Amino acid sequence: MRMLHHFWLSAPSRKVRIALREKDIPFETTLEKPWEQRPELLALNPSGEVPVLVEPQGFALADGQAICEFLEEVYPQRPLMPREVRARAEVRRLIGWFDGKFAREVTDTLVGEKMIKRMTRRDTPNSALIRLGLSSIRHHLAYIGELAERRRWLGGDEFSLADITAAAHLSAVDYLGDVPWSECEPAKDWYARIKSRPSFRPILADHLPGAPPPPHYADLDF
Amino acid sequence: MRMLHHFWLSAPSRKVRIALREKDIPFETTLEKPWEQRPELLALNPSGEVPVLVEPQGFALADGQAICEFLEEVYPQRPLMPREVRARAEVRRLIGWFDGKFAREVTDTLVGEKMIKRMTRRDTPNSALIRLGLSSIRHHLAYIGELAERRRWLGGDEFSLADITAAAHLSAVDYLGDVPWSECEPAKDWYARIKSRPSFRPILADHLPGAPPPPHYADLDF
Repeated sequence: MRMLHHFWLSAPSRKVRIALREKDIPFETTLEKPWEQRPELLALNPSGEVPVLVEPQGFALADGQAICEFLEEVYPQRPLMPREVRARAEVRRLIGWFDGKFAREVTDTLVGEKMIKRMTRRDTPNSALIRLGLSSIRHHLAYIGELAERRRWLGGDEFSLADITAAAHLSAVDYLGDVPWSECEPAKDWYARIKSRPSFRPILADHLPGAPPPPHYADLDF
Repeated sequence: MRMLHHFWLSAPSRKVRIALREKDIPFETTLEKPWEQRPELLALNPSGEVPVLVEPQGFALADGQAICEFLEEVYPQRPLMPREVRARAEVRRLIGWFDGKFAREVTDTLVGEKMIKRMTRRDTPNSALIRLGLSSIRHHLAYIGELAERRRWLGGDEFSLADITAAAHLSAVDYLGDVPWSECEPAKDWYARIKSRPSFRPILADHLPGAPPPPHYADLDF
């Protein structure tokens, strides 16, 4: 069976979980706490990061975006990338935006400071960094709203890996209760459509022991 | 004419410059200082980041990896990605490694603290972060050496975007004189082969006003 090594609040892990379900590709999961650096995880991926997908033939794939591009090439059913090259470049630009800029300014900061530090008990959260993350997310949310107002989905007319990547990051931050949805109606409407997709259900059912999500997290009418 | 908006020490900009030359695609360049946030740059790319490639037809592409994937799809001459899907996933895994982990732990830290802060005069360099970057690069260099010992190029038998991405990051750090080449002979040998490629010549000719590179930077026999 296909095995996905993941961690709940890792946005790249969430992205692969959603992509696999969108494509109806069956898989099982192994929970990793990447900071524990299990030798089994390091053997599969020397970077020690999640996600890692072990295909049924036994070979391992690593890096969220590399895994999604592989899935797109090998399992073309229910495409998650447009066909036309410029449209693909636009989807990949947004993937880079969320996996790069958004991750740096928001996800890694807020999840890192508020959850990972708490779970690893290694350090105290840096409140200046948290404030910076909470301020940055406003700009990103406004940009999502801008895109959602002029397009059906973030990358264009079709639902794509751009939506999946953005939703993977936002859902991890939403688990902390840190997305100011009420400030941006078009972004909220877009996320409500994402939340109602069957592929998103397991994400909404995530529940970290000792750190439950806020009540609106799984609510379709939030 | 095709126009690339770039900044000298931006690794994603270097990656696109090298990829364009490998494919013999003619282009001109416009130098950006991204922190100046020129309205013209923001109009082309709302993230305000470089590189941005404006194609001859007038449309703009943003994000280093998105641009490279576009070039690969539209200009298949001199391929920079292998054909076989698992080999492609391996190349993309390494691209993710350097654009993600290496950028975070090394390039952004060292270039950001030592050069960008100096050029923007906004803040003083954080010496603890610099020490962290200098310590991290040792592990990455050892991993490059490990790959270079068992493969012809980093991603496999063929020169690929994995080599270009790794070299783009390392060359930016090497401009600061911060790559401990003498500690890892196989990594040094791999980089010597990269340096001798015609596509790399313009990178080695980079010269920031007031901040010249160390003498070994452009030396093929370093």
